[in-house]
Amino acid sequence: MKRTLLYEGKAKQVFETGEEGVLLHRYKDEATAFNARKRGSWAGKGRANASISAAVFAYLERRGIPTHFIEQVDEVTLKTRRLRMLPVEIIVRNLAAGSLARLLGYEEGRPLKAPVVELCYKNDALGDPMLNWYHFRELGLTDEELRACEEFGLRVNEALRPFFEERGMVLVDFKIEVGRDAGGSLVLADEISPDTCRLWDKETGQRLDKDRFRRDLGGVEEAYEEVLRRVTGEGVS
Amino acid sequence: MKRTLLYEGKAKQVFETGEEGVLLHRYKDEATAFNARKRGSWAGKGRANASISAAVFAYLERRGIPTHFIEQVDEVTLKTRRLRMLPVEIIVRNLAAGSLARLLGYEEGRPLKAPVVELCYKNDALGDPMLNWYHFRELGLTDEELRACEEFGLRVNEALRPFFEERGMVLVDFKIEVGRDAGGSLVLADEISPDTCRLWDKETGQRLDKDRFRRDLGGVEEAYEEVLRRVTGEGVS
Ligand SMILES: Nc1ncnc2c1ncn2[C@@H]1O[C@H](COP(=O)(O)OP(=O)(O)O)[C@@H](O)[C@H]1O
Ligand SMILES: Nc1ncnc2c1ncn2[C@@H]1O[C@H](COP(=O)(O)OP(=O)(O)O)[C@@H](O)[C@H]1O
Ligand SMILES: [Mg+2]
Ligand SMILES: [Mg+2]
Repeated sequence: MKRTLLYEGKAKQVFETGEEGVLLHRYKDEATAFNARKRGSWAGKGRANASISAAVFAYLERRGIPTHFIEQVDEVTLKTRRLRMLPVEIIVRNLAAGSLARLLGYEEGRPLKAPVVELCYKNDALGDPMLNWYHFRELGLTDEELRACEEFGLRVNEALRPFFEERGMVLVDFKIEVGRDAGGSLVLADEISPDTCRLWDKETGQRLDKDRFRRDLGGVEEAYEEVLRRVTGEGVS
Repeated sequence: MKRTLLYEGKAKQVFETGEEGVLLHRYKDEATAFNARKRGSWAGKGRANASISAAVFAYLERRGIPTHFIEQVDEVTLKTRRLRMLPVEIIVRNLAAGSLARLLGYEEGRPLKAPVVELCYKNDALGDPMLNWYHFRELGLTDEELRACEEFGLRVNEALRPFFEERGMVLVDFKIEVGRDAGGSLVLADEISPDTCRLWDKETGQRLDKDRFRRDLGGVEEAYEEVLRRVTGEGVS
């Protein structure tokens, strides 16, 4: 398949193909954290994240949530529908962790009364800051888009919580990105992986996500492999 | 008048009086910035801020906005109605400056398409962080309260802009606090002064507010005196 590199991001390369409206997402072994001030890489990361994302997207489609996922092309590559991305990162949280724990002075793991949604402006130079609706309106987003982003995040959360729960994991929080398809509908884009979700083992509380890399906890490869195993394993929905 | 110190804050002492439901706010000469990491003080600050606040509160009452202001007791002291404070700082911005300029990557002074409201959690230990509605709900505030805070901020902005404009100043942004009176109505509290407003001279753009202290621009006493003069001067509404 003919590939033209369209964009090289922190975690993926994005290629155009001969096919109109179709992209290839090649998941890399590189990892970054803290707005790319921390960098690392390990063999198998791209493979794990590609297959985890593929499995999660396929599940969400079955649950009626539109995603950009078309098919997995090889171990590290997904074919996706090209979207007009909104410059928004939608974060949904079920338990306090990371920046929210610091923001509210909560201990990590404290359950939230209701899922908390945060909208961040996807802008590397500004450090992807959390903004409110007034800020996003200033940047040209409409109330309809902002409401749709929040609702989309909450719907994905409702679908993903039981998915991970059945696989022995607590979905602490996650980040998604969305875009519009040719018809203008909002579609889930980017990836869903231990890079973009906090996943804690239900029994032991062990972190099975990028916090192992961020916080130098060790066992990061093993954690990603474990999530891959649980998500693509047999005998679960 | 009998006075019992109820609370000593960064800019004011708050006293109870013999009178039920009434407080005295004694404006101090001390100044703090950057979450009290920078400290200073100058003679006349308390006097300027007390009289500016009194004049602004009186004006806002005439414009139909309920405030806690009862009367000025002496050069540095205002008698106010005691309120149940909401733990919220309401910030309203007309031009980009300070943290908003950094947040959006805007140059200082860039006009905003529409006033931007930010709600911050009044909590010194956490550094008064800007939160969104999901965070405030988690902390126990209701949607009705949040909507009322935003609307209150916008109403105050609509009243204050022409007030300062007529006095040769651009109201760049400001912070207010609100509380509930015995009947449950929202009332403007705290202070409105060059400590809590960014005020730029309309002709020269000169800063007439606490940024002179924050940024070591010099002429801070003179700036506060100039605002006092313009706000309490004759021949204006
Ligand atoms: N379906 C899609 N259509 C167009 N762009 C997409 C789609 N899905 C993801 N993207 C964008 O492709 C890039 C993916 O690469 P990534 O390494 O995650 O980038 P980044 O470093 O910007 O996060 C991101 O900029 C993401 O917003
Ligand atoms: N009308 C009011 N009733 C009760 N509390 C008030 C009222 N107006 C202001 N306050 C509170 O009184 C204190 C004023 O002192 P200040 O020096 O500004 O304190 P801080 O350092 O907390 O900002 C603030 O905590 C403010 O929230
Ligand atoms: Mg990315
Ligand atoms: Mg104060």
